Amino acid sequence: MILEKINKPNDIKALDPIEYNQLADEIRQFLIENISKTGGHLASNLGVVELTMALHLVFNLPQDKLIWDVGHQAYTHKILTGRKNQFDQLRKFGGMSGFPKRNESHYDAFDTGHSSTSISAGLGYVSARDIKKEHYSVISVIGDGALTGGMAYEALNNASQVNGNFIIVLNDNNMSISKNVGGVSKMLGEIRASNSYYDLKEGVTNTLYKMPMGSVIVDKIKKTKSNIKQLIVPNQMFEGMGITYLGPVDGHDIEKLIKIFKVAKRIDHAVLVHVVTQKGHGYRPAERNPSKYHGIAPFDIKTGNVLKNENGKSYSEVFSEAVCKLAKKDAKIAAITAAMPDGTGLAKFSRWYPERFFDVGIAEAHAVTFSAGLAAGGLKPVFAVYSSFLQRAYDQILHDVCIQQLHVVFAIDRAGLVGSDGETHQGIFDLSYLSNIPNMTVFAPKNAWELEVGLEFGLEEYNGPFALRYPRGTAVTAFEEFKQPIVYGEAEVMYYEKDIALLAVGSMVETADIVRKNLKAQGYSVTLINARFVKPIDESAVFKCGREHNLIVTMEENVISGGFGESVCQLVSDLQLPVRVLNISLPDDYIEHGSVDILRCEAGIDAETVTERIISFYENIVL
Amino acid sequence: MILEKINKPNDIKALDPIEYNQLADEIRQFLIENISKTGGHLASNLGVVELTMALHLVFNLPQDKLIWDVGHQAYTHKILTGRKNQFDQLRKFGGMSGFPKRNESHYDAFDTGHSSTSISAGLGYVSARDIKKEHYSVISVIGDGALTGGMAYEALNNASQVNGNFIIVLNDNNMSISKNVGGVSKMLGEIRASNSYYDLKEGVTNTLYKMPMGSVIVDKIKKTKSNIKQLIVPNQMFEGMGITYLGPVDGHDIEKLIKIFKVAKRIDHAVLVHVVTQKGHGYRPAERNPSKYHGIAPFDIKTGNVLKNENGKSYSEVFSEAVCKLAKKDAKIAAITAAMPDGTGLAKFSRWYPERFFDVGIAEAHAVTFSAGLAAGGLKPVFAVYSSFLQRAYDQILHDVCIQQLHVVFAIDRAGLVGSDGETHQGIFDLSYLSNIPNMTVFAPKNAWELEVGLEFGLEEYNGPFALRYPRGTAVTAFEEFKQPIVYGEAEVMYYEKDIALLAVGSMVETADIVRKNLKAQGYSVTLINARFVKPIDESAVFKCGREHNLIVTMEENVISGGFGESVCQLVSDLQLPVRVLNISLPDDYIEHGSVDILRCEAGIDAETVTERIISFYENIVL
Repeated sequence: MILEKINKPNDIKALDPIEYNQLADEIRQFLIENISKTGGHLASNLGVVELTMALHLVFNLPQDKLIWDVGHQAYTHKILTGRKNQFDQLRKFGGMSGFPKRNESHYDAFDTGHSSTSISAGLGYVSARDIKKEHYSVISVIGDGALTGGMAYEALNNASQVNGNFIIVLNDNNMSISKNVGGVSKMLGEIRASNSYYDLKEGVTNTLYKMPMGSVIVDKIKKTKSNIKQLIVPNQMFEGMGITYLGPVDGHDIEKLIKIFKVAKRIDHAVLVHVVTQKGHGYRPAERNPSKYHGIAPFDIKTGNVLKNENGKSYSEVFSEAVCKLAKKDAKIAAITAAMPDGTGLAKFSRWYPERFFDVGIAEAHAVTFSAGLAAGGLKPVFAVYSSFLQRAYDQILHDVCIQQLHVVFAIDRAGLVGSDGETHQGIFDLSYLSNIPNMTVFAPKNAWELEVGLEFGLEEYNGPFALRYPRGTAVTAFEEFKQPIVYGEAEVMYYEKDIALLAVGSMVETADIVRKNLKAQGYSVTLINARFVKPIDESAVFKCGREHNLIVTMEENVISGGFGESVCQLVSDLQLPVRVLNISLPDDYIEHGSVDILRCEAGIDAETVTERIISFYENIVL
Repeated sequence: MILEKINKPNDIKALDPIEYNQLADEIRQFLIENISKTGGHLASNLGVVELTMALHLVFNLPQDKLIWDVGHQAYTHKILTGRKNQFDQLRKFGGMSGFPKRNESHYDAFDTGHSSTSISAGLGYVSARDIKKEHYSVISVIGDGALTGGMAYEALNNASQVNGNFIIVLNDNNMSISKNVGGVSKMLGEIRASNSYYDLKEGVTNTLYKMPMGSVIVDKIKKTKSNIKQLIVPNQMFEGMGITYLGPVDGHDIEKLIKIFKVAKRIDHAVLVHVVTQKGHGYRPAERNPSKYHGIAPFDIKTGNVLKNENGKSYSEVFSEAVCKLAKKDAKIAAITAAMPDGTGLAKFSRWYPERFFDVGIAEAHAVTFSAGLAAGGLKPVFAVYSSFLQRAYDQILHDVCIQQLHVVFAIDRAGLVGSDGETHQGIFDLSYLSNIPNMTVFAPKNAWELEVGLEFGLEEYNGPFALRYPRGTAVTAFEEFKQPIVYGEAEVMYYEKDIALLAVGSMVETADIVRKNLKAQGYSVTLINARFVKPIDESAVFKCGREHNLIVTMEENVISGGFGESVCQLVSDLQLPVRVLNISLPDDYIEHGSVDILRCEAGIDAETVTERIISFYENIVL
């Protein structure tokens, strides 16, 4: 086992080159075995084993800065930097993160999680280095999927101004999370397809590089406008932007990768190395279906099948069926995703109504304004997106949708705690960032039924910006007896008693009902209200509760600032209601990875803790 | 006067072509005369007179959809659509907006204000049109400056997938608000420079187009990979993305513009027409200094000099001097702007410390993550930006700066009401969208001195994400006697009495002091506290006020949701303080253009209204 020799950072440098390929095989085996047990990002990690090894061999970490875009492909990097033994605790509470984290290792140069940030961060490092007259290499590794995000282009547009070396590695697997889209992807495909080209270029570069002063000559040629340049540099897009282009190179050929990185390292400005990899490389099921194995739950290695715990339908599935059903009746409904047809549940819609389905790439800002355009053109667009990714389009919601009061529906999945992806993926800010936008409506269903009718309400009864936010995971099917028709801005009163009124948002209704039972068991008289609308808030419900109870308890899976609880406090204050308010929400902090159940307990929003907090608060109320 | 014939939409179509150039001259004269009186965006409008006329001549509005990027260049469009007589009320309260507004005219297809949205919105229209099997043209007019924004690229990446005609007009004046930056700009410059090319291409296109089936042949040629294509289509970047490229064409030659748009109209997919214009064309002072005349106050036409009302230093100027002074002592300080070195006050910094100054283009998202990279690399970056534009980087602040607690300082100008630019430019959301981000600090100075010491505190004493927000316009110089040193998280107690405690944020301290005097004159005993820190809020100050007053009044120039007032309500509720709270803030609504003074009165946050509201509330308190 070569992998046994890899224990600390840079151990790879002591290997004999003939051991490289075996190490790559062993790392793949290690990843497959570990992820089959813990779950995690598989396909993207299998794709970059050789690429990561070559980077570690050519560069000197941690002096050199290696920045992974998105970061879920950094597992091999973690193995090579002394974290091999932490893989059994991957993405578990207290265990190793699934993403690069500066506070986990100083071999992780920049925290990531969201897409298309690596070139910006890399440029920052490069500029700081040059200003401080320091000397190190900066390497940003970005996928072709992440290259559909506008930030990457904003950064590329600035990269030509760099005076020193800056290496951008384009990890091109022709995939985003799903199949990649758009003009740039097509262009990259054409480059990949031109194999004859490829060998010629390689030949020229390598031959020149071996000559005395070779790298200088290579650079010179790259700066000329001669035909020879065309042999080396086919890609006018990057060259046009003033960035030297090298490649494409086979991303599973370590020797070639090492060579090309050595060339790249000597260039005195920004250089893009185009590396062609295969997502899922080395594990047949993942090669065949890389999208399925992008992020995967524990699975059986032999069959590739996910070890299911039968939990029932997820909210994503409920949404999937509901939006298809509505689209069947209403030809104006269109659906938009930012590179996540599977994750958001739009895959079925894309098959049933391909002409009304739009995968725009990892481009949330564009997705929102594009939706606004669709609405202005007379359609009813539904943008299905994860809560944490919609953060990237805050201004577009505010500026392009809500000023014009356009009828765009936001189906916001993964709202609330999401678990093992950690800080960057928790959907715990949307109630805040949506509520401060005028003309926005924010709706949170308590169960599967309410998601269905809420979506129908948003698309067919309401006419304006409408956000539904629902959590990750299995949809709640309880509360069958509570099916009050949806009325705009009205909460659903589920139980009405006195003493304590629980006002719960979406996923917290289920918790609130347990709390209600706990409190009843201890002799309290308890009202339970399903808020439904976080914006506009149901003022008359709050008013009535405030007049007829001693305590209002707000419950939400969102940070406190700008959330539902603060709105209720403000309203109670404004109406001068004779009631106390206790806010149950998430703390003003980022929340790490771990199972959602553990995270809820840690944050103090589980039923047991909430019950205790209410009783303690209630008993100390200054009435 | 040809302009006298232009009274309703499409009147231009009745003109004789020989009248076009005279009309262009008259429109320029009209714009110069009107804007010299009202102020407004001059240089960009002078640049697109012929372009706008040609678009109105070739296309049929309002059936065809014309979408202006940013929109401050739509004045000629307004003249040509029956709004000529409203120019004396341009940007005034109740008057005509300086931007396209669907609710002002149905010739305005999409509201704009922020940059780089037009291609996304246009694509939405195109897709809706094709799904609904309607027939109209969609034209998105985008400047080369706006093309540095990532959203434009996200949209371009999707444009190749359009099945029908979609016309993108690149209005290339080699300028953003200031000089344009980056690789793409350089590339466009190279195209512009190749004049021989230009004539040849034009010749080929026009000759072909005049032949029977000419446009079909032109299209065919454009799809081939032959050398002839290279004559017509020099721009590999757009072509590489699957977008047909036409141009460049002289943007002040109406005849040529008409011809090229007629060609563009017949292409059955996305086409980019590269139009070269001169910002400020036809008015010497604006030609010489287009940046100065981008947005301009009333000026003397002969000299070009702004009619100054001597107001004293603006906050931007105070910031400008302060950051330069600090940078002199501390070589780690770097400054970043997103295409606004003049507006933000960084022009001086850019001259003094060019190696530490970065204009990244209209690219706020990149600017923030780039700043995060600079901080990770050991510098102290200050990103100077307008409040409403920083909205575009909400996720980058949350995801790239604050999770890692990087030392990035945000100098947020134009926070609060900005006046004549209206809805899209009011900086009235930042307290909300910044406060909900963990690890963020939000500081608002009461006057010029406090901006200076606040900036120094953020850069030299604090180490982490730090936001200063200050308003547009003349810096407050009052309150010289109040110079308590800044202590993290602590408010400044200016007057401490009893009854009513005014807790004011930043710009509202000045108003609060007038209110204080008003209240005192009516016999109330009044405390005045300068909040300074909106996040973290000074809990002990609130606690003390709450215990020792009957009423706390919060005052802020921000929407209510998620702002300072809600935080105080939540805190008072949480601490069960025996006090009432009245929140003075902006309503949950967009606020139109008009002078800041008028807008303050309309919103009820002027000193007189606030005084009345406080007295009325106080007298009705349920004590």
